[in-house]
Amino acid sequence: MTTDVKPSSRDRLLEAAATLTYQGGVSIGIEALCKAAGVSKRSMYQLFESKDDLLAASLQERAAAFVAGLLPAADDGRSPRERILHVFEQLESQASAPDYHGCRYLAVQIELKDQSHPASRVAHRIKADLMGFFRAEAEQGGASDPELLARQLILVFDGASARAGIGADKLTGLVTPTVATLLDVADVR
Amino acid sequence: MTTDVKPSSRDRLLEAAATLTYQGGVSIGIEALCKAAGVSKRSMYQLFESKDDLLAASLQERAAAFVAGLLPAADDGRSPRERILHVFEQLESQASAPDYHGCRYLAVQIELKDQSHPASRVAHRIKADLMGFFRAEAEQGGASDPELLARQLILVFDGASARAGIGADKLTGLVTPTVATLLDVADVR
Repeated sequence: MTTDVKPSSRDRLLEAAATLTYQGGVSIGIEALCKAAGVSKRSMYQLFESKDDLLAASLQERAAAFVAGLLPAADDGRSPRERILHVFEQLESQASAPDYHGCRYLAVQIELKDQSHPASRVAHRIKADLMGFFRAEAEQGGASDPELLARQLILVFDGASARAGIGADKLTGLVTPTVATLLDVADVR
Repeated sequence: MTTDVKPSSRDRLLEAAATLTYQGGVSIGIEALCKAAGVSKRSMYQLFESKDDLLAASLQERAAAFVAGLLPAADDGRSPRERILHVFEQLESQASAPDYHGCRYLAVQIELKDQSHPASRVAHRIKADLMGFFRAEAEQGGASDPELLARQLILVFDGASARAGIGADKLTGLVTPTVATLLDVADVR
């Protein structure tokens, strides 16, 4: 008995959609996606209702890796302050990769413009979860205004990832001191 | 003698490119741009080398309005701190418009991915000028580290405009306190 490790058509389409839209934007055509995945258009439409659907599913599929790449392990014993700073250290590290184009979820929402698009809604939810992490840690850390701190942190996250993604800033010596300042002022020591 | 106030083909193309790409993204086709401008493709190609060229020119053409809508008048007698806060008050006000989609220059750079694209280069230069304003005011205001403060302010600008542009935050009670905190910590009183 052998184990078939060849990715399914569905997985190959999700991978192609995630990779190609991250590199080139959401306007990529169905043909290019199917070609990169090695899947016929007919098969694609058996698996997904539309390109919009495929795009939304590909963003959802990347959510676990996004979270794992940024968030600390639950109950890792560190303080809320350290756990929040961890996210930004990870961001700074990811942003130094030559193929970094910023946060894929922010990019998709900016590119699509339409916030009712299925892919925008997936992106919105994943980022709302990140903000939820910040809010929970802010509360845990005794922030004077956890909601304000969470809004500030996700603003810095999006601003930093966008600026690094367009090559305008490398984030070194920028993100950590900025977040540390916001944590200090919110009394999260 | 009458004054002909009808916009030229060139002006109509610049206007259409600026408006339609802001609303729908840079992937809009030449046909749609020419149709909206009421200009033939043949005429368009007599005026601009390519769609890329038209896009770059339309971004440049909007630069004066972008600056006028954000920056305080030169030598308005206010302190550097007040002049910096003015930019963010303007941003917050602009972001409350229902058709606000964020900073057009950031959006173009995120959408195009290619930072050597003529439109990306125009966008980059215009935002570098905004950062230059922040740096000059930071120096004038005696900031402890004017370069760091300027990087922080443009990061907040991009993060705030992006988040408001995707409808994720209204910026009220967020941007002004955040900028005030950064100014306080940098000793710009």
